[in-house]
Amino acid sequence: MRQVRFRDPAGAERTGTYDDGTVSFGDSTYDAEEVDILAPTEPTKIVCVGLNYADHAEEEGMEIPDRPLLFLKPPNAVSSHGSTVELPAGKEKLEWEAELGVVVDRQCKDVDAEEAMDVVRGYTCVDDLSNRDDQRVEQNWIRGKAFDGAAPMGPVVATPDEVPEDASVELRVNGETKQSSSREEFIFSVPELIEEITTYMTLEAGDVIITGTPAGVGPLSDGDTVEIEIEGVGTLEHDVSIPDA
Amino acid sequence: MRQVRFRDPAGAERTGTYDDGTVSFGDSTYDAEEVDILAPTEPTKIVCVGLNYADHAEEEGMEIPDRPLLFLKPPNAVSSHGSTVELPAGKEKLEWEAELGVVVDRQCKDVDAEEAMDVVRGYTCVDDLSNRDDQRVEQNWIRGKAFDGAAPMGPVVATPDEVPEDASVELRVNGETKQSSSREEFIFSVPELIEEITTYMTLEAGDVIITGTPAGVGPLSDGDTVEIEIEGVGTLEHDVSIPDA
Repeated sequence: MRQVRFRDPAGAERTGTYDDGTVSFGDSTYDAEEVDILAPTEPTKIVCVGLNYADHAEEEGMEIPDRPLLFLKPPNAVSSHGSTVELPAGKEKLEWEAELGVVVDRQCKDVDAEEAMDVVRGYTCVDDLSNRDDQRVEQNWIRGKAFDGAAPMGPVVATPDEVPEDASVELRVNGETKQSSSREEFIFSVPELIEEITTYMTLEAGDVIITGTPAGVGPLSDGDTVEIEIEGVGTLEHDVSIPDA
Repeated sequence: MRQVRFRDPAGAERTGTYDDGTVSFGDSTYDAEEVDILAPTEPTKIVCVGLNYADHAEEEGMEIPDRPLLFLKPPNAVSSHGSTVELPAGKEKLEWEAELGVVVDRQCKDVDAEEAMDVVRGYTCVDDLSNRDDQRVEQNWIRGKAFDGAAPMGPVVATPDEVPEDASVELRVNGETKQSSSREEFIFSVPELIEEITTYMTLEAGDVIITGTPAGVGPLSDGDTVEIEIEGVGTLEHDVSIPDA
């Protein structure tokens, strides 16, 4: 099943199902193009994992970590399918990062990896938009990763049975493929990430874990269209604008 | 005025006023000892400032930054006046940090320093509890600073007129003074911090900015009682427990 949050023609927020371009809620069905698709969840936090594909660690010149590198994006970073994200002004290097997002199903803490899939609602596509100018020079990646709109996500939450273990993760910019990998390449698996994160932090229903990006990150230009397609989930699409400084 | 969030004897959550040990809501008044004091706000994020007092930067052996060092504590870090915070197990160095907390009054972005006090609801006391074992070895301070309960705050939000520009900030552990300074010692002022943060991030009503800690941080032991007293605000008190690993 693929769940979708949307605003119906009357303006009401609904969580329905998405199937082949059609959004359904109760007895009503809509063409997905007819309704506003909202971010698929309203997280209290997005817990992010860095360097979870060996090839991306290599392209960034960083060592493979012996435990997950974690950072945070707060709720102001959430943006939705079909949106135009205004990136920070006056920066030289603003980049895309395709990621598999894990949506948490219920409040939990101290979850063992063996039971971790019990707390997973499903998967979504996330762009971990990054402002490298600041990321490179700050201890904690706040200006670099936590700016408004820095986590476009959606369009749906697909239940785990929809998403194969070796699901492909692909990113295109203006139609050209830039990242192409599979979640088989993860250094830390989703259950391992959940165990490590919940050793320290309570996760809430609707929180999101983003699981790192493969090789192939690169710079965005004003007006670019980004598509992130994850096998079994679907395709997130968003644009970016870059204002003059 | 000092606002206080509390649970009344019927269990309902209320925001009343606090005056000299008495909590008032409507025509009802309670002894503050009689009611559960809740965290004074429910932030979507706590934006934290590191190294904002020169003496603390020195004791940590770090250079004074040319712009604020920022990091985040998510909502799972919030804990309340009168609570016992269970700290991460198996760590050697868990420390206190007394901080002035700024509570945001309304959603805002791109706020100039000159107008920044317009978006401030008031001030509270915050303990920026820190797990140095992990903080020292991770890029982003997640295990080190964002664990459950890592931000005890309260007991009230005091409006800015209650808190002098040179308000004293003092921390005691089991009655013994460990930190004693004044917000006159800030490297970056509250308005400067708001301008810098809102260049990148929308702040929401109820969000909290914590403004750094003075010299005198040190290690906590199981069962310690921490008091943070800020002139014009009042005294936050909490205990800590440290479970066996």
